Amino acid sequence: LQPSNQICFLNGQYLPITRAAVPVTDLTVQRGYGIFDFFRVVGQRPLYLNDHLDRFFRSAREMRLDQGLDREAIKEILFHLIHENQLPHSGVRILLTGGSSPDGFQIVQPSLAVVQIPIAAPPDNMLARGYRLVTYSHQRQLPHSKTIDYLMSIWLQPLIREQGADDVLYHQDGRVLELPRSNFFIITQEGVLQTPADQVLHGVTRKQILAVAIDMGLRVEETTLTLTDISNAREAFISSSTKRIIPVVKVDDMVLGPCTKDSIAAKLFTGLQEREERELKEDTSIF
Amino acid sequence: LQPSNQICFLNGQYLPITRAAVPVTDLTVQRGYGIFDFFRVVGQRPLYLNDHLDRFFRSAREMRLDQGLDREAIKEILFHLIHENQLPHSGVRILLTGGSSPDGFQIVQPSLAVVQIPIAAPPDNMLARGYRLVTYSHQRQLPHSKTIDYLMSIWLQPLIREQGADDVLYHQDGRVLELPRSNFFIITQEGVLQTPADQVLHGVTRKQILAVAIDMGLRVEETTLTLTDISNAREAFISSSTKRIIPVVKVDDMVLGPCTKDSIAAKLFTGLQEREERELKEDTSIF
Repeated sequence: LQPSNQICFLNGQYLPITRAAVPVTDLTVQRGYGIFDFFRVVGQRPLYLNDHLDRFFRSAREMRLDQGLDREAIKEILFHLIHENQLPHSGVRILLTGGSSPDGFQIVQPSLAVVQIPIAAPPDNMLARGYRLVTYSHQRQLPHSKTIDYLMSIWLQPLIREQGADDVLYHQDGRVLELPRSNFFIITQEGVLQTPADQVLHGVTRKQILAVAIDMGLRVEETTLTLTDISNAREAFISSSTKRIIPVVKVDDMVLGPCTKDSIAAKLFTGLQEREERELKEDTSIF
Repeated sequence: LQPSNQICFLNGQYLPITRAAVPVTDLTVQRGYGIFDFFRVVGQRPLYLNDHLDRFFRSAREMRLDQGLDREAIKEILFHLIHENQLPHSGVRILLTGGSSPDGFQIVQPSLAVVQIPIAAPPDNMLARGYRLVTYSHQRQLPHSKTIDYLMSIWLQPLIREQGADDVLYHQDGRVLELPRSNFFIITQEGVLQTPADQVLHGVTRKQILAVAIDMGLRVEETTLTLTDISNAREAFISSSTKRIIPVVKVDDMVLGPCTKDSIAAKLFTGLQEREERELKEDTSIF
């Protein structure tokens, strides 16, 4: 997030991002306690907004953060920001912090911040050069919630660079999980799409990819994946809201086949893109 | 941490705590990335300051947070704050946040905040009523560093209350570890003082207790502890900077003997208190 001239929302006020600040006494600063969600906005249209708001409220509930605003109130804030900032392509982050606490543990009144920043549109073609991943044994705390706990992923950045990798794939007790900000998928030799079922964040793009795959007639399995499953796979790829799909060509020392125009990942990318365009045309839920 | 009239330090400025705020773009707000240390100040004297500063710089190094101030510069800030605030009994928190980041991952310029708040002096006698603990399978990320990651301990508060417990004892893969803000000890039937050696924060009070025990002629073992070791123990207790020693009378369903005046925990408490008084008299390192 880069400080910029955009207007953001913080606890009832609209103000420039550069002036938005959280008290040092907030539980997010003192104790790393908070949740967020993040989605792309194309022109005036947030992409898959309802899915993101569903997850935002789920994360807030699991972390017992009730800031007192319902879905409609948050949509109004989004409406206002998007109109004010007039960005052609942007990302919106809705952040709920623990708020100031009398004893440093008790949650009293969470703080809500909504920040919109310009981001590049994802490329229209799937990246020719796939990602190289390094694996690391770690499972996110409360993995179904989108908490602000990214300690491990920031801490691992030098390891990722030293290994010449693009990102890290978490696994624990033999089970492959997720990347810090992306879900992970393989295509088996039999052409089945597999992705970890549990103990991962259920990404909005992950959900759309599973739907696209089913539309395409692919067999889909939310299941348990091992590192051996990856080495036996025909293809592997990752998904995220800002990147759509990126093929994976290497996981540690395991080399995966190059991604071609005929690969299933490439077809899913096209299907995902079409679905996105349809969604942006059809979704008139708030704007 | 309660907002109050005390003066704090934030990135080169002295200002009232109620006005000290961290940009929403800071990695501590966005990603839960930061470290801190906390120590008691009795009048004008910080207790075991050098131990706390040693650990502060160790945590900062492990988390790659270099704010550009050395030990002497931080001591000068402490000197200034303690003189300004004139509190009879207080706690000081030195906090190092990730700072604002261009991409939400890269550490550029950490922020330093030093906050002093009034706290109650710990009781002069060991609490008559011991703590009841509930256990939970969890290990802190980077357990040797004092990071701001307290997500799990805040999240567990309702469980602790529901179980009628005072705090939670973490264990993982059969090994007993620590409490969110305290170290854990047992006295075996043979009178040996045992505490987990590894994958825990090495508390400053823990270090003092081990030294007091050795002075008393107790056998001391930093080792691996299991839940079975607890059920077989003669005594158990916890330690922290603000509480010194609190006996443990129950861990889940395991009942531990009541703490008496003759218990080893009570003797360690007295030894610790004497050591503290000596330290406060002798330590003229900065004031």
